[in-house]
Amino acid sequence: MSRSPYLHDIPLDQAVSLFHDRLHSYGLFGILGIEEIPLDEHAAGRVLAEPLIARRCSPHYHASAMDGFALRSQDTQTALPSNPVSLRVETQVAFVDTGDPLPEWADAVIPIENVESLNETGDLCSPAELRSPFAIRIRASVQPWSNVRPVGEDLIVGQLILASGDRLRPVDLGAAAAGGVTQLRVSRRPRVGILPTGDELVPLQKDPIRGEISEFNSIVLAGQVTEWGGRATRYPICKDKLEALSESVLKAARENDLVLVNAGSSAGREDFTCQVLEQLGEVIVHGIAVRPGHPVIIGFVQADQGGVARYVPVIGVPGYPVSAALTAEILVKPLIKRWLGEMTLENPEIHAQLTRKITSPAGDDDYIRVILGRVNGNLLAAPIARGAGVTTSLSKADGIMVLPRMIQGMDAGDMVSVRLFRDPSILEKNILSIGSHDLTLDILAQNLALKDRRLVSSNAGSLGGLLALKRDQNHFAGSHLLDPQTGTYNTVEIQRIFPGQKMYALRWVNREQGLLIKKGNSKSIRSIQDLARQDVRMINRQRGAGTRVLLDYLLDQEGVNPEMIHGYDREEFTHLGVAVAIASGRADVGLGVYAAAEAMDLDFIYLCDEEYELIFTEQGLQDPLLAPVFDLSREPQFKEQVARLAGYNIVHMGELRTINRGNG
Amino acid sequence: MSRSPYLHDIPLDQAVSLFHDRLHSYGLFGILGIEEIPLDEHAAGRVLAEPLIARRCSPHYHASAMDGFALRSQDTQTALPSNPVSLRVETQVAFVDTGDPLPEWADAVIPIENVESLNETGDLCSPAELRSPFAIRIRASVQPWSNVRPVGEDLIVGQLILASGDRLRPVDLGAAAAGGVTQLRVSRRPRVGILPTGDELVPLQKDPIRGEISEFNSIVLAGQVTEWGGRATRYPICKDKLEALSESVLKAARENDLVLVNAGSSAGREDFTCQVLEQLGEVIVHGIAVRPGHPVIIGFVQADQGGVARYVPVIGVPGYPVSAALTAEILVKPLIKRWLGEMTLENPEIHAQLTRKITSPAGDDDYIRVILGRVNGNLLAAPIARGAGVTTSLSKADGIMVLPRMIQGMDAGDMVSVRLFRDPSILEKNILSIGSHDLTLDILAQNLALKDRRLVSSNAGSLGGLLALKRDQNHFAGSHLLDPQTGTYNTVEIQRIFPGQKMYALRWVNREQGLLIKKGNSKSIRSIQDLARQDVRMINRQRGAGTRVLLDYLLDQEGVNPEMIHGYDREEFTHLGVAVAIASGRADVGLGVYAAAEAMDLDFIYLCDEEYELIFTEQGLQDPLLAPVFDLSREPQFKEQVARLAGYNIVHMGELRTINRGNG
Repeated sequence: MSRSPYLHDIPLDQAVSLFHDRLHSYGLFGILGIEEIPLDEHAAGRVLAEPLIARRCSPHYHASAMDGFALRSQDTQTALPSNPVSLRVETQVAFVDTGDPLPEWADAVIPIENVESLNETGDLCSPAELRSPFAIRIRASVQPWSNVRPVGEDLIVGQLILASGDRLRPVDLGAAAAGGVTQLRVSRRPRVGILPTGDELVPLQKDPIRGEISEFNSIVLAGQVTEWGGRATRYPICKDKLEALSESVLKAARENDLVLVNAGSSAGREDFTCQVLEQLGEVIVHGIAVRPGHPVIIGFVQADQGGVARYVPVIGVPGYPVSAALTAEILVKPLIKRWLGEMTLENPEIHAQLTRKITSPAGDDDYIRVILGRVNGNLLAAPIARGAGVTTSLSKADGIMVLPRMIQGMDAGDMVSVRLFRDPSILEKNILSIGSHDLTLDILAQNLALKDRRLVSSNAGSLGGLLALKRDQNHFAGSHLLDPQTGTYNTVEIQRIFPGQKMYALRWVNREQGLLIKKGNSKSIRSIQDLARQDVRMINRQRGAGTRVLLDYLLDQEGVNPEMIHGYDREEFTHLGVAVAIASGRADVGLGVYAAAEAMDLDFIYLCDEEYELIFTEQGLQDPLLAPVFDLSREPQFKEQVARLAGYNIVHMGELRTINRGNG
Repeated sequence: MSRSPYLHDIPLDQAVSLFHDRLHSYGLFGILGIEEIPLDEHAAGRVLAEPLIARRCSPHYHASAMDGFALRSQDTQTALPSNPVSLRVETQVAFVDTGDPLPEWADAVIPIENVESLNETGDLCSPAELRSPFAIRIRASVQPWSNVRPVGEDLIVGQLILASGDRLRPVDLGAAAAGGVTQLRVSRRPRVGILPTGDELVPLQKDPIRGEISEFNSIVLAGQVTEWGGRATRYPICKDKLEALSESVLKAARENDLVLVNAGSSAGREDFTCQVLEQLGEVIVHGIAVRPGHPVIIGFVQADQGGVARYVPVIGVPGYPVSAALTAEILVKPLIKRWLGEMTLENPEIHAQLTRKITSPAGDDDYIRVILGRVNGNLLAAPIARGAGVTTSLSKADGIMVLPRMIQGMDAGDMVSVRLFRDPSILEKNILSIGSHDLTLDILAQNLALKDRRLVSSNAGSLGGLLALKRDQNHFAGSHLLDPQTGTYNTVEIQRIFPGQKMYALRWVNREQGLLIKKGNSKSIRSIQDLARQDVRMINRQRGAGTRVLLDYLLDQEGVNPEMIHGYDREEFTHLGVAVAIASGRADVGLGVYAAAEAMDLDFIYLCDEEYELIFTEQGLQDPLLAPVFDLSREPQFKEQVARLAGYNIVHMGELRTINRGNG
């Protein structure tokens, strides 16, 4: 088995230009073909291959624009309030409904509400007579062509209705129909074959065992291709065998305009794809300096049809889910748009302020997923998890920023450009929570969704959350910071960070903290003292986390030296992270809440109760965006949902504490 | 036939609140039902009816994050560059591919590029031996859990992946699949029946004769419903008969969650819908103070199923195409979103500067369609045609602004809020042309579309275009303003409006101007003199149009008094508008270009040649956005397309004239 772990990464623009040159030379740089389809609602979303020209005028006859009476304007020239003109129905005027054709002899319409209807004796009609007046009386002259929609008011035969390359929206179909168009010439939708490969892949329906990976990248890729206007075909999983892969690629190339080989992420796997491409055609790019993404392959295979040479581009898409989706976004979307002849529209870009420092290795364009929120008028971007395997990072992200390969980092407070991955109006509904993690925030998120708000969270620990609040970088901070001197929570630290500034703590939950231990407790851990044992490996929370402050307080009380603890430096960022580390055998013990022990079926040794509060500034308290958080904290139904979590006490939930009351 | 021409218009918010109250009391204010669907690419676009919770951790086992060797970190503790550690393959380290499970005994991975591979004799492997090294040598200690993706790094069992109400995007499907979810519980798609009614309606396939109207509103409405997540059914056209309508409405109500009766636009027609609703249920709103839109009806019919009372909302949608589409946008979209349980996201709103004064009758919220463009950094909104029958106004519009019912007008230069109807990034591709109309602008629009630009045009005449340019309200102005003294075009007027400012005229076309006369010329019109004849009705261009200036010049030369001309005050805004007025018999003669005569098959009496130029400021000349306009003016292929239009001469196209050269 040959291995080539060192990829020859080239910059993205260079890769794209190599790819485009080759597409060009194979005649694959324009639309793939034209289809004629009927104009109906199913045409929405298709892209015009040719300019759309009006076949007839709209309206195609002079039409009344009102319900009223058609007349000759010259008959009304002398009409004045003091000198009304009466006109006989049927000989001089004719009733017309809106849209009715104007009689040949008429040149204007007077609306029904502007006339007096008269009966045969010249009196005003009684209600019963209104249906068929004998004459009408007019007290003002009528301008020629008033209240008439003349031929061609909307569209004139031969006029350009839509340029080619326009993606048809429902209202465009209306304009086309008004112009007498019944058949549309649209670009053929590109066919994209998606070929998952890898011995470790199993179909989604099967529960994967250790070492098996559920194959779902093909679902994401197919969804993307469809969204962009292509037709996706998912092929069965192909094993890591050279011949099998070669056969599958050739078959997919014969049946499609583009093949995506989702090649797994190992260097060995890529080699297979490269070998197959070299055998069936050529490799033109192997490795792009983009992260996540790196091991991208671009090539062409020859899949002749009926003796005619036909070259089909094949893209080897990396196996990590985030890399796969981003690679498609960067390389496949523009190609599909090009083949549809559609203007490539980038997602809207906004400018936001970075909430924390980020760094990146030099040499790669780094695609960083962020959540967004507007705090005190400032739009903020908070970076989230960056691992290529963290599927949820793409799903959670509101947008993506690119840290270009020449730049190795940016500071908190720097302005950055973010490409939105959601509707921009969602930004005004986002509540940005940065602070201590608590399981009840999931319940809050779900309930806020029903109140037209979105909770977007980033874990930074209690202290990190308060510091963010100080810098106007979040709407609120969950916090449970114990002051060892007073035994109280949050107040002392808030007074230190916000001296003299009026602040608010929305009491949320009291929760049980204790030791999380693998079910059965085979190492017989009983107390804080046992953490220092040589055979015990602990997992800690990150610096600044309230739980870590609590641990240090407890260690100090018990006289345990942290340096003696195996694993004191190993950090997780959430209670559940700690629980999972223990459940999966990475550690024997950690400090966390009871609910986390319950969730992962762990043993729990109760140590103490602690207060977890949501901290707000004065401005936050006034912000209508945040009102539903306060409302929920007082709703019995919501409190019940929280109380159902093991180890949570909600008796004080919804109470508001004011800090620095006098000095504000 | 009873007529109730006076609608009882109520403000929109009041109508919506009446509607919502009734929906609420019928239990129709939440999601309509839940469907379970498999997780695959077809789930994209569906809306989650319940929170999505992870069924398993992701990764579900500790996985290698690199191609490399799994090892016990403690075995490497003493490794230093000067003191390497050698470890035996198979007993102390094991090769792992990215994604492979970490062996039970290991707690870290070292990437393959960070080790030296040794053969059995302790030497560095030869290339042939690299495939199966005997041992590896390490020159730095390895941290526990480095290069390992621990269980739950991405998702932890029980974690909230997505809140209910989220519309699933492809990347969301990936996150759900990573969490072990294979079935999704989504809200049932609302069924919407669309029922066109009216004796004058004919199916789109039939060529309509005078008085007949092609039925296509149902296509637009069905397209909208589908886009918003509903399932649309179009019913056959129903005649204006009470029983027929009643039967059709009841059938549609039985088969759908909502019925849209596209009721034609006459007061008589509405009465039918009202009568039917009163007969089958009730009318709760008749008339909303929104324009275009007005005659909207909201009611409910009782369509019991299996003895269970079932109430189905019915909306009487006005017949004018623009009113129909806007009514759906205002009333149907929020209802569908509510029934899907989806957050209603408004299209993005932007702030722009109005290019011209607008007025509106008091009492109505006026929905005004605008085109948008950014000129010298300012975002501008130019109002376009306002008629409810002008289908193209919706198709052309980049966005919609609402003039609230309390406000009767706004001035040029006022800042307004515009809801975008297109992707925001399109704004940066829009070239805003305000000025004199010429047929070649259609050809320019189509060719710019191929160069990643959109030409959006508003006709304001030559003078209007120059004044707009003066106020930075357009990118360029088409102009053909004759100076009677010098016989030259544009220069004198530009010098008057832009004294001392360097300006540019891109020479475009010379075109033949003359009299347009109905084929056959039955009134024997021969010259300008004939315009003053009593039996001749003329149609003129608007004030400020170059063609009107030319006419006045010719009348002056011939000594004809404009006051003697029948129809001198009747104005059209385009050459084609004049041509259509003559073709359709609204007038006998008008001044226009030869190409317009050709397009509408009119007789043409040549009078003179004139120069039509595109006028730019210095900034415009530098603007990369506009570069393709200059490029095209010099491309032989483009020029040929223009030259094919009758009466056009392109010998000077692409030449650039500088005006006020010295004084800039």
